[in-house]
Amino acid sequence: MSEPATTNRTIVVASRPTGKPGPENFASRTVPVRAPVDGEVLLESLYLSIDPAMRVWLEEDPGYVPPLAIGDVMRAFGVGRVLAGRYDGLSAGDYVTGRLGWQSQPTLQGADLNKIDLELGTPIDWLGPLGTTALTAYFGILRIGQLAAGETVLVSAAAGAVGQMAGQIARVHGARTVGIAGGADKCALVTDEFGFDQAIDYKAEDNMAAAIAAACPDGVDIYFDNVGGEILDAALTHIRQKGRVVVCGRISQTAGHRQGLYNTGQLIGRRARMEGFIVSDFADEFDAAQRWLAARIKAGEIHQKIHVLDGLAQAPEGLRMLFTGENFGKLVVKVAD
Amino acid sequence: MSEPATTNRTIVVASRPTGKPGPENFASRTVPVRAPVDGEVLLESLYLSIDPAMRVWLEEDPGYVPPLAIGDVMRAFGVGRVLAGRYDGLSAGDYVTGRLGWQSQPTLQGADLNKIDLELGTPIDWLGPLGTTALTAYFGILRIGQLAAGETVLVSAAAGAVGQMAGQIARVHGARTVGIAGGADKCALVTDEFGFDQAIDYKAEDNMAAAIAAACPDGVDIYFDNVGGEILDAALTHIRQKGRVVVCGRISQTAGHRQGLYNTGQLIGRRARMEGFIVSDFADEFDAAQRWLAARIKAGEIHQKIHVLDGLAQAPEGLRMLFTGENFGKLVVKVAD
Repeated sequence: MSEPATTNRTIVVASRPTGKPGPENFASRTVPVRAPVDGEVLLESLYLSIDPAMRVWLEEDPGYVPPLAIGDVMRAFGVGRVLAGRYDGLSAGDYVTGRLGWQSQPTLQGADLNKIDLELGTPIDWLGPLGTTALTAYFGILRIGQLAAGETVLVSAAAGAVGQMAGQIARVHGARTVGIAGGADKCALVTDEFGFDQAIDYKAEDNMAAAIAAACPDGVDIYFDNVGGEILDAALTHIRQKGRVVVCGRISQTAGHRQGLYNTGQLIGRRARMEGFIVSDFADEFDAAQRWLAARIKAGEIHQKIHVLDGLAQAPEGLRMLFTGENFGKLVVKVAD
Repeated sequence: MSEPATTNRTIVVASRPTGKPGPENFASRTVPVRAPVDGEVLLESLYLSIDPAMRVWLEEDPGYVPPLAIGDVMRAFGVGRVLAGRYDGLSAGDYVTGRLGWQSQPTLQGADLNKIDLELGTPIDWLGPLGTTALTAYFGILRIGQLAAGETVLVSAAAGAVGQMAGQIARVHGARTVGIAGGADKCALVTDEFGFDQAIDYKAEDNMAAAIAAACPDGVDIYFDNVGGEILDAALTHIRQKGRVVVCGRISQTAGHRQGLYNTGQLIGRRARMEGFIVSDFADEFDAAQRWLAARIKAGEIHQKIHVLDGLAQAPEGLRMLFTGENFGKLVVKVAD
């Protein structure tokens, strides 16, 4: 274990993004480490997660979480090691996950952190295939989507952190899976590495509705939507009777780039449902889900591709990459080993 | 009972509407009455229903029902009296509902008809407050919307056949109800005759989202959508946590007039659901629903305003009125007494 540094390197919000977020919205600031008071622990951040939800967190009114003020340390999930503690449930050397933020040596409430079990997975696994994005895929497919074996599941951003897990979880439950991704390289990942039955390269298709119809000739039972916009609208044209649209994300839609949906009328004749959710709604079931995921990972049935950026300073650049689709797999910033 | 005529007056499909349907899409044709064969009955049509779903039925591929061909008698629900029968379950003088079509003396399969109980309501009641539009409101509010007492229910086309029933059924179940309608006269109907707590005149509002926010300061638990388009998009901005959008109709949207939805991203942060349905999905529960409705009508808690047009020849004009919003209440064509 490294010695605690005396300074905490942080990345704070400098402005709210109007379009795609990136380095211009953040500033670095180094502050003294704050000694924990009762109930708190001092952590060393190891890995921090870069997530699409961050753009929502940067809005003036995110709706489901408190807003960030300009000057606040950027909110981020992460995994870290306890350096010193004044909280009964945690000791120096314990590994935890939680909202560490973009900072190297956070001092946080112990009650807000979750001690992780390194028997189930490595620290980076706890941000990856056992982490929030994996849980989002799990509850999206099983609880919101209510997948039944033999159904056809269409996943957008299928090479992305949530999409790759959604497809694999659906496959393990007996679904036929079709993934949508941008470019031949990502489509190869989708079929060869994540085991989707088929991939659709949206960048190579003029007519996504026709491409979805060709890949899903009997229609789509579950469309797991990570992108919104035109691809969602195309998927609605091929939703099956009693189909479900799991509304998970809308990474294609920004304040400056908004596309209307024209096909929600299909929900009537198809008796179909679109439903949104937040993964924390299922917090009571996280343990069971993580044990299931760990067993599938150990059995070689599921894995997650992680795209690691080296150094806390890369976090804003990582957020930019996520929204331009330059990442290959789940984006994580390595802060320390 | 009148003597059976020897001719059957019919109105057939002449062309598929591209925008709002109306008389130009239909033609009259008089044909000989066809004597029933085994399993069939000859009816005298009394009242025929004019419904928004008719525009969908006129499409080349309605999706959930077989398409109508050019030259086919227009499909329509109706109530009639049996004149002669070769079907065990029905005798001359019985009253029935079913898909009579726009014709005065249809010969139909007895198995496709439902004998009605005149103790529960008059023949016209069986097209009105006990009919398909009332059942649509009932199952939309209770099964799709899963209303709980104390919730706020927003209904569009609230003076229309389904909307007025949706609001009253919600009120009886303990909801606060807000209705959207076009014009001061319809808004007066909504509050004074149907007992909604408040009405919004969409024709008088520049900003529907603001009007909905003002009328529903705590947000909307159930939005019962009969119109689609801009009003749906505005309602999505004020949907509450765990809110439900009951996708029942989209009368504002035609092939020539389509508005995009921009606010479905709200479904994520609000954990909300949009769900479509077809009333026939609940056919097993029709009896129970009709008994409940009949009891509420008898108690004076619910009633339906019926707009009667006189004569089969008025049916195409009735369909035009429905799509221009000129009707006051549930539209019915009276064919015979």
